[in-house]
Amino acid sequence: MKKIAVILSGCGVFDGSEIHEAVLTLLHIEKLGAQYQCFAPNIDQMHVINHLTGEVDKQVSRNVLIESARIARGEIKDVKELNAQEFDALILPGGFGAAKNLCDFATQGANSIMNKHVENACKQFSELRKPAAYICIAPAIIGHVYPKGVLMTIGTDIDTAEQINQLGAKHVNCDVSDFIYDETFNVISTPAYMLANSIIEANTSIENTISKVFEIMSNDRG
Amino acid sequence: MKKIAVILSGCGVFDGSEIHEAVLTLLHIEKLGAQYQCFAPNIDQMHVINHLTGEVDKQVSRNVLIESARIARGEIKDVKELNAQEFDALILPGGFGAAKNLCDFATQGANSIMNKHVENACKQFSELRKPAAYICIAPAIIGHVYPKGVLMTIGTDIDTAEQINQLGAKHVNCDVSDFIYDETFNVISTPAYMLANSIIEANTSIENTISKVFEIMSNDRG
Repeated sequence: MKKIAVILSGCGVFDGSEIHEAVLTLLHIEKLGAQYQCFAPNIDQMHVINHLTGEVDKQVSRNVLIESARIARGEIKDVKELNAQEFDALILPGGFGAAKNLCDFATQGANSIMNKHVENACKQFSELRKPAAYICIAPAIIGHVYPKGVLMTIGTDIDTAEQINQLGAKHVNCDVSDFIYDETFNVISTPAYMLANSIIEANTSIENTISKVFEIMSNDRG
Repeated sequence: MKKIAVILSGCGVFDGSEIHEAVLTLLHIEKLGAQYQCFAPNIDQMHVINHLTGEVDKQVSRNVLIESARIARGEIKDVKELNAQEFDALILPGGFGAAKNLCDFATQGANSIMNKHVENACKQFSELRKPAAYICIAPAIIGHVYPKGVLMTIGTDIDTAEQINQLGAKHVNCDVSDFIYDETFNVISTPAYMLANSIIEANTSIENTISKVFEIMSNDRG
């Protein structure tokens, strides 16, 4: 049975993993007959956002690994332990946590840097050319991980795309039901809630992307 | 377009809504062509559980409505505002939050009482005989809401079933892929993660249950 690593970034669209995207990722991995193992960095979140009001709650701090454990029902490991040799593919759901906790793209844009343990994990999959899928805003990480010119998408947001291009990636506009596949580096990206107006639109984005991951894994078998 | 009210109880299986169940509920409502509106009570959670260690975090408190807003991407209302006349059906996903925050069944069992606003919302659907589905441990609420003898299930846990029977409901054992439908009161229940060992098992439980809700709504049309 194929094994897929999933890196989470907290629990909630505004300061962590986008919850629908994360759950739909786990669903489609199992529907296609594989197992998943969730990981997250053991660090404080950039901040905590009250998801009812949209305001930053300055009184509290939360840990990315502990909050991500809510999505994983407790079955989660520190991303430091992620060894790409043990997995067939990697998937990163979106949510602002991908751009606030896994790297600081949300505030630093073209000058962003990555959490070193997440960077190490992602680069292992890049170097082994194992398939990896980045969803929603998580593709902002692709420019940090893959060689210059890697094709990717975050949908159609020109300003965000320009900052990603400065990181070395090459942004391609993409519809919510579609994905961009860079054949050279075996990396896939899809807009999901960067463009989706509903959970079924996000579901189509993620289902198509994960089906592509499985197609690549299947082709790699020989 | 049909409109379905969803009552959440926080964000995380051990102290709130079970996240997979909640997201799969929203997915299947939209897949079957209806809209959802999420609600939650504006109260403190019974406690906060660290989902990595399973321990209670006594240093912090969290609000059920604010945490539920993470699952609803901010689009959520206080359950006090729920008017059953505006909706075609009601769904309550599970997670311990249903038995800790919506009522105190987790600690009080057969002597449990409900949050008054949640009770009022659920009873409106009961009195109008509009279809309602209770998932996982949320069916522990059914005995509080419906007349004596209402048929329901939480799976196969005999001790929990006995406490629910003392509340006036009549528990029926049920497999994870199935559901129990009480035709008299138009209420459905399904085990989901009370029995599911994986997200696809939980998905089957929820998909079948929500399909039944739609079948009932369709029959009620005439």
